[in-house]
Amino acid sequence: MATSASVPTMNQQWKLRARPQGRAKESDFEWSETTTSELGDGQILVRIIYLSLDPTNRVWMEPVDTYMPMLPLGSVMRGVTIGVVEASRQRGFAEGDFVQGLGGWQSYYAGEAAGWTKLPRIPGLPLTAFFGAMGHIGFTAYFGLMDIGQPKPGDTLVVSAAGGAVGSLAGQMGKIAGCRVVGIAGSDDKCSWITSELGFDAAVNYKKENLRDALQSACPKGIDIDFENVGGGIMEAVLERINLGARVAVCGLISQYNAERPPSGPANFGLILTKRARVQGFVVTDFSSRFGEATAQIVQWLQQGKLKYRIDMVEGLQQAPAALNRLFDGTNMGKLVVKVSDEPSK
Amino acid sequence: MATSASVPTMNQQWKLRARPQGRAKESDFEWSETTTSELGDGQILVRIIYLSLDPTNRVWMEPVDTYMPMLPLGSVMRGVTIGVVEASRQRGFAEGDFVQGLGGWQSYYAGEAAGWTKLPRIPGLPLTAFFGAMGHIGFTAYFGLMDIGQPKPGDTLVVSAAGGAVGSLAGQMGKIAGCRVVGIAGSDDKCSWITSELGFDAAVNYKKENLRDALQSACPKGIDIDFENVGGGIMEAVLERINLGARVAVCGLISQYNAERPPSGPANFGLILTKRARVQGFVVTDFSSRFGEATAQIVQWLQQGKLKYRIDMVEGLQQAPAALNRLFDGTNMGKLVVKVSDEPSK
Repeated sequence: MATSASVPTMNQQWKLRARPQGRAKESDFEWSETTTSELGDGQILVRIIYLSLDPTNRVWMEPVDTYMPMLPLGSVMRGVTIGVVEASRQRGFAEGDFVQGLGGWQSYYAGEAAGWTKLPRIPGLPLTAFFGAMGHIGFTAYFGLMDIGQPKPGDTLVVSAAGGAVGSLAGQMGKIAGCRVVGIAGSDDKCSWITSELGFDAAVNYKKENLRDALQSACPKGIDIDFENVGGGIMEAVLERINLGARVAVCGLISQYNAERPPSGPANFGLILTKRARVQGFVVTDFSSRFGEATAQIVQWLQQGKLKYRIDMVEGLQQAPAALNRLFDGTNMGKLVVKVSDEPSK
Repeated sequence: MATSASVPTMNQQWKLRARPQGRAKESDFEWSETTTSELGDGQILVRIIYLSLDPTNRVWMEPVDTYMPMLPLGSVMRGVTIGVVEASRQRGFAEGDFVQGLGGWQSYYAGEAAGWTKLPRIPGLPLTAFFGAMGHIGFTAYFGLMDIGQPKPGDTLVVSAAGGAVGSLAGQMGKIAGCRVVGIAGSDDKCSWITSELGFDAAVNYKKENLRDALQSACPKGIDIDFENVGGGIMEAVLERINLGARVAVCGLISQYNAERPPSGPANFGLILTKRARVQGFVVTDFSSRFGEATAQIVQWLQQGKLKYRIDMVEGLQQAPAALNRLFDGTNMGKLVVKVSDEPSK
């Protein structure tokens, strides 16, 4: 499989063609085939194996700078990837190394090595674990809950999008921290998964139940921590029951990412004052200097069987645009990943 | 003036008669004259000298528990007061002591001493200083800015309701901390007061100027701290320009206190996530264990001439209901105080 740095490689790519109105359509992307450029000094060639699909991808398509610069039209769509180095002109990276970085929606990445990290092989952990719990997903849950949520034993933690990749981990970490954990999800399958398999104390199917009533019975002592992935009416219902000194870790606002006009904020914003709540947004990269700490802790929890995750695998780069919308339909179960090419045989 | 504990004293009171719709009207209160009850063990009789009028008083009239229990209809209206002890059955309080506490809208308080504090006499500081900067108002500015806002030299601080009692102090403390300080106020008089007398770097009259444009020119480096007293559209315009890692100290939401229906929250709530902002509500009583620290610091600043305040004095308890609305009209300049009786002659 290995190619030398001087031999161009056929590369398939999804480029951003248009800014979506509402949900992204396949026609907002453009499929293109090209060859990789020759490597310069400091560059690496990575064959992409897995592409992570995350709600924030939709945010990256907007014509604004967010926590990342705006993605210009015509660029390869941005995405977090895991791959294997096939050629390197950067000290520290060698052929055969497994790496993670912003490889984008393409089959090969040829460019700067800066920003890429090498992945260790850990006994018993498959490569996909780095998307399941050991990478940006797990770190997001870890820092959002531990640093922003500051759980104490006996606290009540509510997690929205609890059947999603981050939410399902945040809830399990809440159990490890001694909280009563209540998940909000959009299907009975998800509710049953998080309570029977992941150990959540209760789950609310917001599509079937009256959310306010259900939260009232599931959270008899009010809510101390909201791990917020959704925003909108769901966040509003959670805020309605926060206790004095509550913490709201704003991890995502998926209900808003496809909105064509900015939605109104929570009508009960005033509760932030009367309940002296702390509402704090965060992005996992803010904590990059502490990824080592998170890695050590998460590996241990995985090996002890205290953290579980599911990978929802989609086959083939061509499926990426259609698969992205499964995050917004809520039809994914666990971490959504596109398999772009095969793992090397051992 | 002193009366013994066994002699009842004529007492004038404003009681809460009805829950206001929108702004409080005089007919929402009931004027009554009664005599004070005899003191039991642990009780004190206080002749009220000054009554503080604060925006939060309107919140206390609502039929809900907030950071204080709901005030039942028929109760004496709640209010922070300064007075002089005329009789005491509580060790530690003696006739002639100056005290501060929730004496309410009445001319005499006869009840539990718990919750009242004795006021020291500090050379050069009039009794009204305890409403101007040395009491709950100054402490609110101090803890909101220092603890929640966490100012660093060079930060840009925006203060809304900057001509108000708390806002004018928070801005001056921001200058002491080395910030660029921009005030938002509703009259040219207030704007001129905070810039020429209090040292704010800039002021915006939101009633005359386009707030977004004015903030853009007044805050060329964006906004690091929002000391928020107002909420609504004013907060939204400030949020529009927050920098990464901004802090929003939610001290008050005066634009909402008279709303008959809950207003919608900030439409740009999503900026809390993309800018990783921390939005935190607080109430000064949360910091009561540290009032000594604040007192020591504020006395020093006052004596050094680094903090200035204005008292807007209204004569006579009967004026209280009408005067309260001046806070919402924005016609008060500085701290609004009702003079209920004379200070004792020395």
